[in-house]
Amino acid sequence: MKTVYNPQHAGHAATHEFFRGRLVPAFEIPARADYVLKAVQAAALGEVLAPVDHGLAPLERVHAPAYLRFLRGAHAEWRALGGEGDAFPAVWPVRSLRSDVEPQSFAARMGLYSMDSGTPLTAGAWEAAYWGAQATLSGLEIALGDERRAYVLTRPPGHHAGADFFGGYCFINNAAVAAQAARDAGLQRVAILDVDYHHGNGTQAIFYERADVFYASLHGDPQTEYPFFLGHADERGAGAGLGFNANEPLAAGSSNEAWFAALERLLGRLQVFAPELLIVSLGVDTYGGDPISHFKLDRPEFAALGERLAAFGAPRTLFLQEGGYATEAIGLNVVAVLQGFERGLGRAGSR
Amino acid sequence: MKTVYNPQHAGHAATHEFFRGRLVPAFEIPARADYVLKAVQAAALGEVLAPVDHGLAPLERVHAPAYLRFLRGAHAEWRALGGEGDAFPAVWPVRSLRSDVEPQSFAARMGLYSMDSGTPLTAGAWEAAYWGAQATLSGLEIALGDERRAYVLTRPPGHHAGADFFGGYCFINNAAVAAQAARDAGLQRVAILDVDYHHGNGTQAIFYERADVFYASLHGDPQTEYPFFLGHADERGAGAGLGFNANEPLAAGSSNEAWFAALERLLGRLQVFAPELLIVSLGVDTYGGDPISHFKLDRPEFAALGERLAAFGAPRTLFLQEGGYATEAIGLNVVAVLQGFERGLGRAGSR
Ligand SMILES: [Zn+2]
Ligand SMILES: [Zn+2]
Repeated sequence: MKTVYNPQHAGHAATHEFFRGRLVPAFEIPARADYVLKAVQAAALGEVLAPVDHGLAPLERVHAPAYLRFLRGAHAEWRALGGEGDAFPAVWPVRSLRSDVEPQSFAARMGLYSMDSGTPLTAGAWEAAYWGAQATLSGLEIALGDERRAYVLTRPPGHHAGADFFGGYCFINNAAVAAQAARDAGLQRVAILDVDYHHGNGTQAIFYERADVFYASLHGDPQTEYPFFLGHADERGAGAGLGFNANEPLAAGSSNEAWFAALERLLGRLQVFAPELLIVSLGVDTYGGDPISHFKLDRPEFAALGERLAAFGAPRTLFLQEGGYATEAIGLNVVAVLQGFERGLGRAGSR
Repeated sequence: MKTVYNPQHAGHAATHEFFRGRLVPAFEIPARADYVLKAVQAAALGEVLAPVDHGLAPLERVHAPAYLRFLRGAHAEWRALGGEGDAFPAVWPVRSLRSDVEPQSFAARMGLYSMDSGTPLTAGAWEAAYWGAQATLSGLEIALGDERRAYVLTRPPGHHAGADFFGGYCFINNAAVAAQAARDAGLQRVAILDVDYHHGNGTQAIFYERADVFYASLHGDPQTEYPFFLGHADERGAGAGLGFNANEPLAAGSSNEAWFAALERLLGRLQVFAPELLIVSLGVDTYGGDPISHFKLDRPEFAALGERLAAFGAPRTLFLQEGGYATEAIGLNVVAVLQGFERGLGRAGSR
């Protein structure tokens, strides 16, 4: 399997983040992607390619242009105002407050365009996120071609980013960008399977009223796990999208058996949907050793996940890197999934 | 004029707060009320009374019971989870996220019930806010009696607190509690004039669709000033409340002439409304020396404000302490308003 690697990720390097109201050392750090790259190379998974620039237009298909404009200039604004280091938002337009006026205040726009204080806006955030989306689009092209599959190695992750806000370490929603680009390339039915420990609130919300992109996620129950305010089982889509969203929230600490049972329920739904492209939001913070998550997957389970996705048999599959915070183990866990997938393909091919 | 003083304010003593994404020494501190009490006593303004307990019911008339329940137990929960010092929220249900499910997670409920990270939830926050509301209700009783006027000296302030969220140093919206209690006591028309530097987003939102409580505010333009996401000139009420909300946003740095001109416009509106009770959300962060605000009022202007409010001639008037962060000057500024009011009343009485 070919990998598209986003080298700009390294410029997005926060030292600290707010975690449950306290300033703590950052979890979402460049070493995460470095370890994955090493593991991909060590496993000789396949060619590692640089992203090709597709411009802003595909990002504007899922994100508000005003949001992207803000994000692009935000850290420079922060510095021009005398800010040092990373910028954090501090006030939000919740219930009864307005989101329809973009205030002049930089602090206000930081809040208007975000959902938490746990996502440091670093000097390199825009470049990292922009090139992550480009890597995603480059990976999509490979998956839409003869290769029929690809892996996109990037950070920051994307699935918490909404149409017009950042949060949960995410700025640009790569899964949404890829799904929309696939639709624009002529595919009729795209499925996003989100196996990250956390619910992909941004991805769900972007496609919630659409029948052409099916969002399916299994994740830590939002009653106790981030992002808390979305990802419940009763969210099944709305309007034209009713029936095209499926959530499997699982209690923190759930067994691997429970996890795979939930995966089977989702794959059953997706089988009926019959997507022409399967996008996998591949977070490996489901790992037992993850410092901020509470599932118990380990190498054999990650390999089994990869094999199961191959058996699912989507015509085309695109793997996108999302979370995973047990830094040194991330690479091995990701490679276990991807090698499992390749093994599964080989088996299917020899049938 | 009689003062009702909330002695429980002192238990709400944060050392730090988040201000524009940075942890800084707290502005909203017990010394604020101490200086006002000293000034009230030094000026021999009148009797200083303790609050009488009116229970939770009047608070539940304007705040969601689930919010009050959370607030009451929040700091104990935080400590039981191993939290130390003050608690801060870190994640919010903005656009596309759900506010209709109360998550189990304490961190999530902190976010569900707040609008910013600038409001430390201290060990004494609930007692201070609860007794502030009781002081407010006690002051209202005095104003509804033969005295026809009263001043409530309390902190934290109230006008940013929404029906179900805290923020901007505020937990319980005293002005809203007083207005609703006055209505419940049989008054037909209640006006709230908010002269704090900041727009009282919580008060406005609570009465936005009602014609019986007129909210009028002059304040720093939300384009650049907290709370940023409400307080624009085009917010005139909705539904039955259309026409019963008036905002006069003024650019930071506006002259005293501009401030008094805006005050006249609002009083003209309120004159037509002819309230039976005028509640004054009395913030004195309009003071030229205030560390977080940008108007230029000084002692003579505060005295003129008091005299003008007496001339307005509402049958009953209730002053509630809101903001003001130039700690040592707050007392003198507040007393200037209240003495101006008394002088104005005396003059009217002698006419
Ligand atoms: Zn995650
Ligand atoms: Zn204020």
